[in-house]
Amino acid sequence: MSPTQEASHSPSTAVSTGTDIHTSPQEPMNGKASNGHPPKGTNGATKTNWRRRSKYRHVEAYHSKIRHSSLSREPNVTASFLGFRNLMVIVLVAMNLRLIIENFMKYGVLICIRCHDYRRQDVVLGSALFALVPFHLYVSYLIELAAARQAKNILGQKKKDGSTEANESEQRIFKNTWWISAFFHCVNTLLSLGITSFVVYFYVHHPGIGTLCELQALIVSFKICSYAFTNRDLREAMLNPSVESALPEIYSACPYPNNITLGNLVYFWLAPTLVYQPVYPRSSHIRWSFVAKRLSEFFCLAVFIWLLSAQYAAPVLRNSIDKIAVMDIASILERVMKLSTISLIIWLAGFFALFQSLLNALAEVMRFGDREFYTDWWNSSSLGVYWRSWNRPVYLFMKRHVYSPLVGRGWHPLAASTVVFALSAVLHEVLVGIPTHNFIGVAFAGMMFQLPLIIITAPLEKIQDPTGKVIGNSIFWVSFCLVGQPLGALLYFFAWQAKYGSVSRM
Amino acid sequence: MSPTQEASHSPSTAVSTGTDIHTSPQEPMNGKASNGHPPKGTNGATKTNWRRRSKYRHVEAYHSKIRHSSLSREPNVTASFLGFRNLMVIVLVAMNLRLIIENFMKYGVLICIRCHDYRRQDVVLGSALFALVPFHLYVSYLIELAAARQAKNILGQKKKDGSTEANESEQRIFKNTWWISAFFHCVNTLLSLGITSFVVYFYVHHPGIGTLCELQALIVSFKICSYAFTNRDLREAMLNPSVESALPEIYSACPYPNNITLGNLVYFWLAPTLVYQPVYPRSSHIRWSFVAKRLSEFFCLAVFIWLLSAQYAAPVLRNSIDKIAVMDIASILERVMKLSTISLIIWLAGFFALFQSLLNALAEVMRFGDREFYTDWWNSSSLGVYWRSWNRPVYLFMKRHVYSPLVGRGWHPLAASTVVFALSAVLHEVLVGIPTHNFIGVAFAGMMFQLPLIIITAPLEKIQDPTGKVIGNSIFWVSFCLVGQPLGALLYFFAWQAKYGSVSRM
Repeated sequence: MSPTQEASHSPSTAVSTGTDIHTSPQEPMNGKASNGHPPKGTNGATKTNWRRRSKYRHVEAYHSKIRHSSLSREPNVTASFLGFRNLMVIVLVAMNLRLIIENFMKYGVLICIRCHDYRRQDVVLGSALFALVPFHLYVSYLIELAAARQAKNILGQKKKDGSTEANESEQRIFKNTWWISAFFHCVNTLLSLGITSFVVYFYVHHPGIGTLCELQALIVSFKICSYAFTNRDLREAMLNPSVESALPEIYSACPYPNNITLGNLVYFWLAPTLVYQPVYPRSSHIRWSFVAKRLSEFFCLAVFIWLLSAQYAAPVLRNSIDKIAVMDIASILERVMKLSTISLIIWLAGFFALFQSLLNALAEVMRFGDREFYTDWWNSSSLGVYWRSWNRPVYLFMKRHVYSPLVGRGWHPLAASTVVFALSAVLHEVLVGIPTHNFIGVAFAGMMFQLPLIIITAPLEKIQDPTGKVIGNSIFWVSFCLVGQPLGALLYFFAWQAKYGSVSRM
Repeated sequence: MSPTQEASHSPSTAVSTGTDIHTSPQEPMNGKASNGHPPKGTNGATKTNWRRRSKYRHVEAYHSKIRHSSLSREPNVTASFLGFRNLMVIVLVAMNLRLIIENFMKYGVLICIRCHDYRRQDVVLGSALFALVPFHLYVSYLIELAAARQAKNILGQKKKDGSTEANESEQRIFKNTWWISAFFHCVNTLLSLGITSFVVYFYVHHPGIGTLCELQALIVSFKICSYAFTNRDLREAMLNPSVESALPEIYSACPYPNNITLGNLVYFWLAPTLVYQPVYPRSSHIRWSFVAKRLSEFFCLAVFIWLLSAQYAAPVLRNSIDKIAVMDIASILERVMKLSTISLIIWLAGFFALFQSLLNALAEVMRFGDREFYTDWWNSSSLGVYWRSWNRPVYLFMKRHVYSPLVGRGWHPLAASTVVFALSAVLHEVLVGIPTHNFIGVAFAGMMFQLPLIIITAPLEKIQDPTGKVIGNSIFWVSFCLVGQPLGALLYFFAWQAKYGSVSRM
């Protein structure tokens, strides 16, 4: 490592070396630069001088200027933390892989295709309910058909009289018609919900079959309500044509009484919406490859959810029964946290399976154009944003047929919201409590608890600062992941176990 | 809910309601808009018409145009997933909180301030080594002082002769001086490293004290090498002033023989760098509040690391001994994964404590300007980028005094890199193996294993596509988090246990 040796070697070969190596020119050692000063001007450009410096490789000034550490909070220091995002994903995968190995070593394989306890009665009753509920929609069609006939008669009468405005007796007839049809619609809806709920609660033991039937009954009830309310307003608009009764432009393709057909109702029944419109935006054709992709997604996610539930959620739930029974708070907390990851994954997979895969497949088959079944609820900076964006079909129903009319009547928005959430709370309790045969009120309380949370987090929506949004989003996720899903699941599971002993033979 | 009731209430109050509510004008119901068509032109502006529509609240066309779901891969659909980043952070915190609770229920409190097994001999010997090692720097100062005197004599001779170039006998004298000084420097460095290593390996049982002494000896050895090499080149540049010997402009403040002072060396000894420069960029003044903040960060992180090690890392390590002993691969994998999170957190905290807090505090006290002790290694898209950015002091030393001179002599960059990593591997093994009294070669093998990883991941650096960067970054993190830290820690712990039984009385 003598300097002469180094100097004699470097000029000939250094040119072909790597990126952070300074090349030495093949010139004899002469010139008269003084020590410590770069010989400016001897060869013109500074760059050449800089290259000349490189003869003595041990003197390079690596510390040549003032610099800050990238994690210091100095001005002009901005660090990217994208790598830590990747790290988080990897750590999450690794932690869960570890839990999978741990679970396997502890329980072995818990998945068992033949181990189900469907009673024959459950399947028969469930299928019958599932098939019969849509007939309530047919009943509501008959009611609307009668009302439409009467309205047409009134309109014919008016045309004969030459008047454009309904007179007092016509108004009264219309009002009576609405009361009569509203009565029949109510009976119809209540029957639809009531029969299903009664049968499920008393005769369908299996909670899965019960939930499917109850869900179908709820959806059909929503559709009946929307069908009745919308046609009521359309009818009134037809009888009282005025500036104020102007209808959305899209409806002009099918003006009022023309929409009261069985085909139109069947489309509404099958369309992925709870809000009735005589006309919907339609896509031009069905992309069957799109349908196939969405359905295979749905199928894979369904299997995935089943595996997760059987192998991971079930043992955690079973292990937590003793702890809930003795009200050991620390242990319950530990169980809720352990359950929170798995219930979160199941929820996200279920959300994607239903709202992305299934509803998009259905919409594609029905050529239903508006696929906004959800917006980016995962970025919600408040609970209010979440409830407005995660389930658009129900949100739009509630907004159009509950919130907006109430506010239109002069209600305070908060009172109208309370009504919406109270209704939603009742329906959540119905949807969970009836199939599990336990009205413990947790789903109801959970939904009602949303209102104060929405009010508390509402100011966070308006903050422009990203930190405020992150705080709001974190509050949303914590209440959603920790308090919402796993605690509810744990309590209903405990109530079920208290009543029936064991959910399955596993 | 009769329509008349609704209509009679809405005009008077709807104006003062919420955001998504359409207000109804206080006008009588007249006009002659036809069904399904908005009455354009009756009142001029379209906006007015739109407001007029609102009388019938159940007919609003919520599905008015074709829209895609935000998770669909349709063109023009871009979704932000910022909320999921927040979710990941929350899930990580929750999972680790759960592990904390689980750990507490399993082991109770393992932290114990009085439970240490420092032998008196360890503390005495460690302190003595720590205090004596810097004297080797003083020896190297004496060597350089002698060499500088001789160089000044030669220069004086030349000035008398009036020649600017060194003649052959002067070159020979210079060469001999270098060989003599190089010999003494080598002896000095080897003594510094050798004495410390010998004492630590045979007489200092406690691995923590041993590591501190060994680290100090390594740092001083690095500084001696840099001091010797740099002054060799500065001396030669002084004796052969030429275009090629141009030195960095920053050195002009202190030309060669002036820098051989004890004060200059003491500054280099205490400065947070391993690369000797006669002059460093300096900050204008010491911000003592900055120093206090950095030191308190360091203190808090040190306590944090101690708590983590005692409460979380130690039980995992102890529980894994049986599994390593019987070579149960699945269990070892599970242990490595369990250890990976905790070792990652300890490593990150340690990195921040040393490279951000301690070195910045030291730099502030020394008014050392260049605080780039690391760059954003967490975004590394390849292993090569990581090794160039996480530990800049060592990287700069290796680049200036090993890699660059070798390449300057015509070595292939890959061969030079191999030398750097081989040297680094030896020093890693020294740093880990000597204090733990086990030369098992894992640290050496781990470092040598980096070379193929660097070569494999090098193409990923050049990919412009973000996916390539994410893949490279993920490979880096996985090799870093899973294979690097926890596996190494596990193996050295196992070797220690095999030799000594138990690391502490806990």
